[in-house]
Amino acid sequence: MTQRANDVGKALAALRADRPLVHNITNYVSMDVAANVLLALGASPAMVHSSEEVEAFADLSASLVVNIGTLSPDWVAAMRLAARRMCDAGKPWVLDPVGVGATAYRTGVATSLLALKPAVIRANASEIAALAGAQARGKGVDSLAASRDVLEPARALAAATGAVVVVSGEVDYVTDGTSIVAVFGGHPLMPAVTALGCSLSATMAAFAAVAAPFDAAVAAAAVFAVAGRQAGDSAQGPASFRTGFIDALWRLTPQTVAESAELTSP
Amino acid sequence: MTQRANDVGKALAALRADRPLVHNITNYVSMDVAANVLLALGASPAMVHSSEEVEAFADLSASLVVNIGTLSPDWVAAMRLAARRMCDAGKPWVLDPVGVGATAYRTGVATSLLALKPAVIRANASEIAALAGAQARGKGVDSLAASRDVLEPARALAAATGAVVVVSGEVDYVTDGTSIVAVFGGHPLMPAVTALGCSLSATMAAFAAVAAPFDAAVAAAAVFAVAGRQAGDSAQGPASFRTGFIDALWRLTPQTVAESAELTSP
Amino acid sequence: MTQRANDVGKALAALRADRPLVHNITNYVSMDVAANVLLALGASPAMVHSSEEVEAFADLSASLVVNIGTLSPDWVAAMRLAARRMCDAGKPWVLDPVGVGATAYRTGVATSLLALKPAVIRANASEIAALAGAQARGKGVDSLAASRDVLEPARALAAATGAVVVVSGEVDYVTDGTSIVAVFGGHPLMPAVTALGCSLSATMAAFAAVAAPFDAAVAAAAVFAVAGRQAGDSAQGPASFRTGFIDALWRLTPQTVAESAELTSP
Repeated sequence: MTQRANDVGKALAALRADRPLVHNITNYVSMDVAANVLLALGASPAMVHSSEEVEAFADLSASLVVNIGTLSPDWVAAMRLAARRMCDAGKPWVLDPVGVGATAYRTGVATSLLALKPAVIRANASEIAALAGAQARGKGVDSLAASRDVLEPARALAAATGAVVVVSGEVDYVTDGTSIVAVFGGHPLMPAVTALGCSLSATMAAFAAVAAPFDAAVAAAAVFAVAGRQAGDSAQGPASFRTGFIDALWRLTPQTVAESAELTSP
Repeated sequence: MTQRANDVGKALAALRADRPLVHNITNYVSMDVAANVLLALGASPAMVHSSEEVEAFADLSASLVVNIGTLSPDWVAAMRLAARRMCDAGKPWVLDPVGVGATAYRTGVATSLLALKPAVIRANASEIAALAGAQARGKGVDSLAASRDVLEPARALAAATGAVVVVSGEVDYVTDGTSIVAVFGGHPLMPAVTALGCSLSATMAAFAAVAAPFDAAVAAAAVFAVAGRQAGDSAQGPASFRTGFIDALWRLTPQTVAESAELTSP
Repeated sequence: MTQRANDVGKALAALRADRPLVHNITNYVSMDVAANVLLALGASPAMVHSSEEVEAFADLSASLVVNIGTLSPDWVAAMRLAARRMCDAGKPWVLDPVGVGATAYRTGVATSLLALKPAVIRANASEIAALAGAQARGKGVDSLAASRDVLEPARALAAATGAVVVVSGEVDYVTDGTSIVAVFGGHPLMPAVTALGCSLSATMAAFAAVAAPFDAAVAAAAVFAVAGRQAGDSAQGPASFRTGFIDALWRLTPQTVAESAELTSP
């Protein structure tokens, strides 16, 4: 067991002990599965999106995830208010720029949110490339690029924004602009379940309440990779995989994840 | 089998026979699971939230649930229109004041809805305490107080509003300000599944279409407790619990629930 | 194996090969299950609803589904923009007029969308009757009429609008105003799972990206019927049915569906 894998186990133990309140401003598609993922890991999720109350709710929360999957102007205004509030309070927030690059509106919103200093940015390869201003091919919200192909744009984006950047894919890469950790594992059924990527971003927000952003991102990717492999063993298809995955997150112990996590620095 | 347990069985038989249309103005997180819970019990759920049509839809509906989990001003306006319409027509509506006490906006909305005379108010201990103006500790939308600790505020809230008040927790308490019934059962995995509390409120609305509010609240709590215990027997975690729970609601017979419900007046 | 059943197998093979981007403007209740159904079949779903970007997103998409289940004025404006864009580009879009006839608002919206030339209209018997201006009894979003009873209104609606019209029920009927194909199969648990009808409409949009509208509607109804029958064999209730159904869609092969589809022209 490496030190880094051991740290993942410690982060999970801290999450289950602290049960942090995680504020989610996220897309409609992901709300059910993301809330269930967070509960299975021991966090306390809440979905609150109105400008009337997002700042007050941010004050109660340990961390925030902003996910732009199903955008509209009212929600964008609330995202900005909540992210700014977390930023001003020195509390971490995670940006999931779903579909950035697909439309000018989406790209503008995602880019403008960067100024509010997310602690972590998690996306697929096409989205990271779009956000970094690089060339990439995306299709709607799914990626056509491989994670490995955008390591340089990811590193540059981290350096430019100060955020930890995570490129999700068959292998997940976590970089702060200098170091890179690769997280292996998971299962081919994961992209066939909607909003698991969104749920991973929410999980990074949960871990960011109990660990530094880089460690939080690695911990979230690692628990997903370990639980995904476990769930894949008995799945009959994507729906039974989803059930087994959430159950596996629930049963995951710090000891198991520390022993099973596959992490390397390429 | 007590008379009260027998009444629960009768209420379930009536629900399956009548298949009432239940109007839901509820939060985004709960819509999928609440609709599936209502269908499993035999009700006919519909989610309709626009001010343009909520009054017309309320006219078609046997009952209504208003759940403030994911608030915004447009939705609040529609909640008021629909609740007033039900109130004016003498039809029952259920209030689920999710997270009341967490922000001033949320507390203001929940409090103002009390004037529209909900037949039932269902919430966790922290929320009931907040709504009753008592001191309590909540964390976002989860409760840090025990149901038993807020029996007096619950009783006072019922007396002040004329609503049946339900405090959900490990034990559910139902009071009309005078009588109190305690409902035992359920399973420790229930709070690990998102929106089961919201689904319970929706189920109370469904039963309120075929029984008096107090009996409806007891019946809903009892079917959840019995199905929850059944589902817990074979669950591997919260996701398989959710699947087993909805399946158990579907298979539940009036006879079984009447024989299995554990109800007492403390 | 008939030619038509063989065509269903070919359409499924094309869908899995092309992985078309399907734009969904749909109700909140259906988003999770519809996205998972589309992914299980090999399509690439995206839920995008803001007027700021629906036209740009429609330009990227192979097809669109517009579902009016949870309406509000902002969404209606976006539905119109996106549908018009698809219509102008000669790309197919599917209309699911959920609950049309229940309120004047809903009826007005559904009727006005007909002018934007949907390629397919899919609904239950009550909704088809309401849209066709015929007499029918509906209850909220559930149908009280049998599919067979509205064959004539369905045929008339197809002739008047130029759309392929699908009446869903125990048997699904697909008509272009001249021909009618009946699709048999499925399972009695299907109406006990929320939003499977909505998911069927989304699936018709997916198939419309790789086949002519009539063939797409038949293919979608047939894969649902075959997977529904398979899932019903081992279901314990509606929730395990839903899991098994999505898994069955995932495992379905062109060969199996071509051999198992039951299609006739009455």
